[in-house]
Amino acid sequence: MTNLKFQERSSIEQVEESTDFAPKFDENGLMPCITSEAQTGEVLMLGWMNAEALRLTVETGEAHYYSRARQVLWHKGATSGLIQKVIQARIDDDQDAIWLRVEVAGSGASCHVGYHSCFYREVPVDNAAGQPLEFLEGEKTFDPEAVYGDVPNPTQL
Amino acid sequence: MTNLKFQERSSIEQVEESTDFAPKFDENGLMPCITSEAQTGEVLMLGWMNAEALRLTVETGEAHYYSRARQVLWHKGATSGLIQKVIQARIDDDQDAIWLRVEVAGSGASCHVGYHSCFYREVPVDNAAGQPLEFLEGEKTFDPEAVYGDVPNPTQL
Repeated sequence: MTNLKFQERSSIEQVEESTDFAPKFDENGLMPCITSEAQTGEVLMLGWMNAEALRLTVETGEAHYYSRARQVLWHKGATSGLIQKVIQARIDDDQDAIWLRVEVAGSGASCHVGYHSCFYREVPVDNAAGQPLEFLEGEKTFDPEAVYGDVPNPTQL
Repeated sequence: MTNLKFQERSSIEQVEESTDFAPKFDENGLMPCITSEAQTGEVLMLGWMNAEALRLTVETGEAHYYSRARQVLWHKGATSGLIQKVIQARIDDDQDAIWLRVEVAGSGASCHVGYHSCFYREVPVDNAAGQPLEFLEGEKTFDPEAVYGDVPNPTQL
């Protein structure tokens, strides 16, 4: 455990309008975390944090998550080398979601499938609704089998 | 109800590597949605969608969410006029999160507190960990009382 203390949530005004850091976790003890590339603004992934992952991220300046698939604290990049250095962290109005602007080490990728961003496919909207997804990245940034080896795929059906 | 059909999820390969649109909703029937400003890359909000909100967003090209506080489908901007026009929608690798790049009508704000972005406060990290939150927006973009009147504040303690 680390030393950073969160504030108790005492009022809507405190949560929304003060400088108190009073995060709220859901019924599973988790909070969604948006992680984007600081330089480009591209969203790389949507991860989840428990209280310890949030504390470690804030204290170390490197993104930590909670893996729902593996049910463990997860220092992003510990296996792949693709460490995410936090350039800026922001919390939202009701303090139940966090946004990290990061720089990624190595190839810059953040997706376990091997792409740069987890959001590598477009959903056609409006007049194109109902059309198949469109790939936005032509090729993978790294070979996930070479990087992750026998680690189980976290995607769940 | 609308007409757009989602695909059944049949395999990890289909979900991650195909053009099938096979979204996954959580145990509450919801999926997190990251909404960013198309032109700047600034994240405006983290919302939630149920299946109907996702279908309506894709079919109309305007962001729809599910309000967890009010437990209703929510056409963003219906009350405030701050409609979010979808420039691009993307889905992530395991298809349980969506990212909208939008243009916002009117003042361009997206936060019920009155700020441009819901993420109007920075969490100091690393050597500054434990310091108070820092406001990044000096003043509000609109007056929430004038816009929302008696609508209850959605923030929950």
